[in-house]
Amino acid sequence: MRRIYSLLLAGLLGGSAATARAQAAPATPKIDSLAVRKIYDEALLRGQSYENLRYLCQKIGGRLAGSPQAAQAVAWGKLTMEKAGCYDKVYLQECQVPHWVRGAREKAEIIGNKGKHVAVAVCALGGSVGTGGKLRAGVVEVKSLAELKALPDAAVKGKFIFFNRPFDDALIEPGTAYGGAGDQRRSGPAEAGRRGAVGALVRSLTSSRDNYPHTGATNYGDTPTKVPGAALSTMAADELSHLLSADPTLQFELEMSCQTLPDVTSYNVVGEVRGSKFPDQFITVGGHLDSWDLAQGAHDDGTGVVQSIEAVRLLRAAGLRPERTVRTVLFMNEENGTRGGNKYAELAQQNHETHLAAIESDGGGFPPRGFNAETTPALYKKVAAWSPLLAPYHAGDLTVGHAGTDIEPLTAAVHPTALFGYDCDSQRYFDLHHSALDVFEQVNKRELELGGASMASLIYLLSKYGL
Amino acid sequence: MRRIYSLLLAGLLGGSAATARAQAAPATPKIDSLAVRKIYDEALLRGQSYENLRYLCQKIGGRLAGSPQAAQAVAWGKLTMEKAGCYDKVYLQECQVPHWVRGAREKAEIIGNKGKHVAVAVCALGGSVGTGGKLRAGVVEVKSLAELKALPDAAVKGKFIFFNRPFDDALIEPGTAYGGAGDQRRSGPAEAGRRGAVGALVRSLTSSRDNYPHTGATNYGDTPTKVPGAALSTMAADELSHLLSADPTLQFELEMSCQTLPDVTSYNVVGEVRGSKFPDQFITVGGHLDSWDLAQGAHDDGTGVVQSIEAVRLLRAAGLRPERTVRTVLFMNEENGTRGGNKYAELAQQNHETHLAAIESDGGGFPPRGFNAETTPALYKKVAAWSPLLAPYHAGDLTVGHAGTDIEPLTAAVHPTALFGYDCDSQRYFDLHHSALDVFEQVNKRELELGGASMASLIYLLSKYGL
Repeated sequence: MRRIYSLLLAGLLGGSAATARAQAAPATPKIDSLAVRKIYDEALLRGQSYENLRYLCQKIGGRLAGSPQAAQAVAWGKLTMEKAGCYDKVYLQECQVPHWVRGAREKAEIIGNKGKHVAVAVCALGGSVGTGGKLRAGVVEVKSLAELKALPDAAVKGKFIFFNRPFDDALIEPGTAYGGAGDQRRSGPAEAGRRGAVGALVRSLTSSRDNYPHTGATNYGDTPTKVPGAALSTMAADELSHLLSADPTLQFELEMSCQTLPDVTSYNVVGEVRGSKFPDQFITVGGHLDSWDLAQGAHDDGTGVVQSIEAVRLLRAAGLRPERTVRTVLFMNEENGTRGGNKYAELAQQNHETHLAAIESDGGGFPPRGFNAETTPALYKKVAAWSPLLAPYHAGDLTVGHAGTDIEPLTAAVHPTALFGYDCDSQRYFDLHHSALDVFEQVNKRELELGGASMASLIYLLSKYGL
Repeated sequence: MRRIYSLLLAGLLGGSAATARAQAAPATPKIDSLAVRKIYDEALLRGQSYENLRYLCQKIGGRLAGSPQAAQAVAWGKLTMEKAGCYDKVYLQECQVPHWVRGAREKAEIIGNKGKHVAVAVCALGGSVGTGGKLRAGVVEVKSLAELKALPDAAVKGKFIFFNRPFDDALIEPGTAYGGAGDQRRSGPAEAGRRGAVGALVRSLTSSRDNYPHTGATNYGDTPTKVPGAALSTMAADELSHLLSADPTLQFELEMSCQTLPDVTSYNVVGEVRGSKFPDQFITVGGHLDSWDLAQGAHDDGTGVVQSIEAVRLLRAAGLRPERTVRTVLFMNEENGTRGGNKYAELAQQNHETHLAAIESDGGGFPPRGFNAETTPALYKKVAAWSPLLAPYHAGDLTVGHAGTDIEPLTAAVHPTALFGYDCDSQRYFDLHHSALDVFEQVNKRELELGGASMASLIYLLSKYGL
């Protein structure tokens, strides 16, 4: 396109829709809109988050809790926060984390009744037991846990249960589709084992039709019999389903050498700026430092990590010392245990801290929309009144919704008044999520920076006005 | 992330911000919200635009007006619209288009005063004359046309003028930054020639710092002396600037074999659905079929092309025959002449057509925000009242702004009551725009589909309620 921006009509019609909304909303001090503008300027003109992310992704890479890379990420996080020069202190919070390793062998084949072998793209689900050599069995396809439940024991015993319910693509928010299909991965292997199956095969949790398997945690709970769980790429799942319908007696052969080792000591990384007026009131901003091992954990959650550091740096660089104490927390082990999130809440409780609010960025580093809020109606209304300040940056939407896994434990421990999840456009997110595609190149510099600035702006307002 | 969508608070707080806006807005009939939902369902569950785009990008590719690929694209467009089965008739509109070719040679080097040669990434600007062999000269860097104007003749004569003003990254809309830097490319070579320079080197019009030069039209106007114009990648521009500051006497050597051939006959492709109640009132929806030659023209403007076909298909597939006549127009030659857009307007005038509205998609196939509108305050208000219908799809923003280059000529010719430009998030757009990076893989299926559905929904409302 050749676009020549005409503002001819703007005067005639009295400004854009965004401006119209701003005018209709309660007046906000001009000083705040200037402060927010300063924050965005710093982010877009002198931002550091993109280069920080490049290092985390390309020099350290995938960093599952307990791995050497996770340890490197802890050291990197501490050093990066110290170098940012915006914190009064930077420290570690020790926690014990699970240590699951994928192992060297991960392979699967469909074997037709005429002996034809078709290799398919699989990966072990996080936390899965291994197969102990090659595991071969027939396959029963189901679309839900309920469908498995309804099957007679004879149909299940000794088989692989193939959970093949796709995303509901009609849903506008991909996260809702993920929520709707996720029980297959989380509980499929446990339920399969409980019923006497030898393993579970789960369609990857994505709308995208490609050949990349997507991992993610599976949870055996108190299942006495743990059987292996693997994700199939969506193309592999479609192929298996297609071949099964022609040949229900086909065999599937799976080999996975994954295993769970003893727990390991790891850490949350915390940077703290003491509030100038109310140092005993805390505002937390964080993302998770661990990631799955198949790629670089760029959008999940490298972006949240670098934005949480950047948000505080932006405040200070814009000359906005927070009135309340602000902590950046890089949480360890969100993906397969939330041990870091739990530890942070436990220490907050132990130290009798007053937590005003917590912000989490763990939905990717895509262009901002605003925030998902978990709070009371009165405080929701108070925060929603700040929307006009963020609307010019397309970050003014305040939506009621889940804020984040790592800040959730604060609710039970210290009852913060509000939790916020950074909300961005996530149409692309589950194409990459937990797969080999989640790499640095998928992150756009400006989208990342706009997110960090949106978070900084909310912290500025929370820290100035309280809740 | 592991995200479990909790709607616990939704009841408590009375729904999301989007819902709150919907409740505050004028009531819209339930039948319309169901129709819109049907349109999005069809797009997301049975969409055809993504596969159409794959073909256009990967089988035809870059398709500059006058090229064999542009002719293939015309044939493809007609066949694709016929196969879509949603039009009453599909036809071509003949127009003469310019025929510029890049040629085989395109090369540049910086030559230091110690004889060191540094190769740099360049491409000819569209419409540029060639260099006629190797062209070597000194370089004068300026940041604007005004700065060139202020230079004495002696400083300019026989030199390359190097226009190196970057995007203003503090601007939130990248399109505004493009508008702010674009005069260097459009008029830089003409002004350089007018002042006796031998050529113009222009920093690529992007925020992204990489090694891909971005082409785009340059316009000599009535300049008597046409000198070659080339785009440097942003990295090449930074390097040239850096080397120049150390060695102002360095030489630059440029070789480009581009040339303009005689005009060629080409076509707009038009598909028409006769309105069931008001067949003499026209609503146009379109994108441009031509693209620059360096890549596949995916976001510019393959996405607009396939969305404009899909929008009409969605209406019919959802059982919504339009009450007014709807035309899909695939415009030829937007990039370097707008001959197709002008021809369409000329024929509309000649045939005394009544044009109610026109919608253009030429800002990329990214996630929807809504539409840019050019209309009267009263009609803006009428259309803005439909926002709540599109807000659940994040497409409810109606902004005053430029609607599109190809539909603009209708204004002078037949005075349509309103022009709309599909507005989507464009943070990534200028990273790709007019460069080798604008390929199919940069387009996300769901983002593309949501855009087509947004356009179809606006057509549905315009066609039902008029303006």
